[in-house]
Amino acid sequence: MSLTDLSSEDLTQLQTEQRAAYDELVAKGLGLDLTRGKPSQAQLDLSNALLALPGEGQTVDAAGTDVRNYGGTQGLPEIREIFAPLINVPVDQLVAGDNSSLAIMHDTIVYSLLKGTASSEQPWGSGPVKFLCPAPGYDRHFALCEQYGIEMIPVDMFDNGPDLDAITRLVADDPQIKGMWVVPTYANPTGAVYTEQVTQALVSMPTAAPDFRIFWDNAYAVHHLSDTETPALDVLGLAAAAGNPDRVFVFASTSKITYAGSGVSFFAGSPANVSWYLGNLAKRTIGPDKVNHLRHARFLQSPDGVRDLMRKHREIIAPKFEQALAILDERLGKYDAATWTHPLGGYFISLDVLDGTATRVVQLAKEAGIVMTGAGSAYPYGKDPRDRNIRIAPTFPLPEEVSAAIEGLSTCVLLAATEKLLAG
Amino acid sequence: MSLTDLSSEDLTQLQTEQRAAYDELVAKGLGLDLTRGKPSQAQLDLSNALLALPGEGQTVDAAGTDVRNYGGTQGLPEIREIFAPLINVPVDQLVAGDNSSLAIMHDTIVYSLLKGTASSEQPWGSGPVKFLCPAPGYDRHFALCEQYGIEMIPVDMFDNGPDLDAITRLVADDPQIKGMWVVPTYANPTGAVYTEQVTQALVSMPTAAPDFRIFWDNAYAVHHLSDTETPALDVLGLAAAAGNPDRVFVFASTSKITYAGSGVSFFAGSPANVSWYLGNLAKRTIGPDKVNHLRHARFLQSPDGVRDLMRKHREIIAPKFEQALAILDERLGKYDAATWTHPLGGYFISLDVLDGTATRVVQLAKEAGIVMTGAGSAYPYGKDPRDRNIRIAPTFPLPEEVSAAIEGLSTCVLLAATEKLLAG
Repeated sequence: MSLTDLSSEDLTQLQTEQRAAYDELVAKGLGLDLTRGKPSQAQLDLSNALLALPGEGQTVDAAGTDVRNYGGTQGLPEIREIFAPLINVPVDQLVAGDNSSLAIMHDTIVYSLLKGTASSEQPWGSGPVKFLCPAPGYDRHFALCEQYGIEMIPVDMFDNGPDLDAITRLVADDPQIKGMWVVPTYANPTGAVYTEQVTQALVSMPTAAPDFRIFWDNAYAVHHLSDTETPALDVLGLAAAAGNPDRVFVFASTSKITYAGSGVSFFAGSPANVSWYLGNLAKRTIGPDKVNHLRHARFLQSPDGVRDLMRKHREIIAPKFEQALAILDERLGKYDAATWTHPLGGYFISLDVLDGTATRVVQLAKEAGIVMTGAGSAYPYGKDPRDRNIRIAPTFPLPEEVSAAIEGLSTCVLLAATEKLLAG
Repeated sequence: MSLTDLSSEDLTQLQTEQRAAYDELVAKGLGLDLTRGKPSQAQLDLSNALLALPGEGQTVDAAGTDVRNYGGTQGLPEIREIFAPLINVPVDQLVAGDNSSLAIMHDTIVYSLLKGTASSEQPWGSGPVKFLCPAPGYDRHFALCEQYGIEMIPVDMFDNGPDLDAITRLVADDPQIKGMWVVPTYANPTGAVYTEQVTQALVSMPTAAPDFRIFWDNAYAVHHLSDTETPALDVLGLAAAAGNPDRVFVFASTSKITYAGSGVSFFAGSPANVSWYLGNLAKRTIGPDKVNHLRHARFLQSPDGVRDLMRKHREIIAPKFEQALAILDERLGKYDAATWTHPLGGYFISLDVLDGTATRVVQLAKEAGIVMTGAGSAYPYGKDPRDRNIRIAPTFPLPEEVSAAIEGLSTCVLLAATEKLLAG
């Protein structure tokens, strides 16, 4: 049974039911927030040993460097050794930074605009700059482009990655296209995983711009929700083998491994890109927070230490995803009224409602005390061309709050759909 | 007795003595480094309680915010409350950031170049940009300008601040002059303290550029070396009273209070500047390292906690300055062969040797195993017009190393001077 096949009488009947359910919902006076991909308190508690680390007397790294003093732009060797295998990059091509990988992305863009990349003849900013933006995607990536006047070209996202035909055509023709956003593993918000075949195509395709860069934000590389623990691809190796060693900037962080905002961020790239990045970084700062690197290295111990920790995260958040998916299936499945993703990792469920109703759904939910990320926020300039996409972030609320929010949201989805269909 | 008054015979005699002393020095095979203004291990040890703070179970700030999660761009209220009185700014106009104030300076320049300041009609980068650079000054300030193609205009530094006549004339005439570097308290490297009168002039002077900014880097605001604990001026209040509330960006950090590279940095400004800075910052990052803010607040406790800690720093480093000054006086004073500063705070002694010999002195010292910052490094583009200035950083080495280094350096100063005078 599809909503669009219902008779006018049946639709009216359904609307009456959902209106009643909605009135009940509003009466409950909920105050729920599913806006941001934030870890929950229970997840943060997993890393509380950090609060007393590295511990008094722990002042030097494995090489004997005093972590309390200036220097060491590339970051502590021991924290780089833990994360290099997890994101599948050579340890000497990995830089450990401060508390935010978004900040590293910002800075690489700024350096490229003002100085040019290692392959640029001129600074990017000497002419118009465009980025390809697979959408739905991460709103903060798009906000960075908007901030610096970089024109965003949306590209459709499919289950295994973005629209390669469109991408290869666009980059081959337009030398102003200097960059492309990618969240390769458990993409924000769809959960899509870029396959090796897709990745191969992206690092191999001819580009009109010699200084084209893929911003490979592996934010969820180890954030599995199932036993299918997809390993990170050797994207730098693939790019080098394809003859484009400098095409990829890799980013990652511990924001959703340890603490959000007090973790360690990472940059990786070809030797030329690492040298370029560190050269620019050395003008900006005399060194990263090495005490925090030591603190994290002592806490995480090894790549397996990280994997074990991530399984504990999964124990906390996977049930929330399962609950949310079960409620969506129960409430919306029979009407064929929406589609949604079933992610194997990451922090989001991407919900596509009836075309033209996402804004109304988010508004209805808000008035019922359920705050969702604004409709369209996963698209460049906040413009979802079909006004259908809603990002669900189930990690932060308590399990019962997730259930209540998704129940309420489902009511809003059906109510908005019947409104639209009856009006049409 | 001045070196320049000596007869050729006396000069030759002096040179012979200094050559012998230098040969002995080289034979010692020293390995001393006086290049950077780094805290010593004994200073770092003062803050070792930080290594186990905030401590397990300490997860929220005074307002009840979980410091382990995202958010709070302006930084923890309690750390801002401790530092606001110390740098004499209103607490609500103070932002607490991550581990590097140099990084904040970098970012304010980048935002100004790419977006413009709160008072700019266009981004600074839409035309040529010039900065006034009182010199000798801080090499990393000058490196930021060089990195982004900002033309540096050197201005002489005197004992109580820079050449105001030159500055007021230049900024009145040239709208391309957008900025000026200031280290107001215990300037790097001269130790000069900007008086209220000088500051008043700087915040009041008419400028051709409506978006002219003073980069007020109060890096040594509480870093006293004597009982004269000069308090920070209310530079924001003075600027507002002069009708130029948005003229000043204030910077500070705990790099030389707690740990260098793992401390907390600060930005302060007018309400318009703070709003501008936070608006840009919010695109770059989801928040600062609030756990480190809490760690520092618990350790430092109060403004008086900081003052007490700084007195302990003074106990460790003031004797090194005294030693260095005593040796300079003993070895060089009688010849009138050089002048040097007697700082009441900060991290440096600025030594002016015989014109045209600084490069030679640094080279001689290096060959004797005493590494000094390169001659000219305290000047824009590394060019000391009189080749006379050498920056001495006595804090990091052990006391006996400081003595050995300054003894050796004095020999080099005299040897280079006699070489020059006999050749001339």
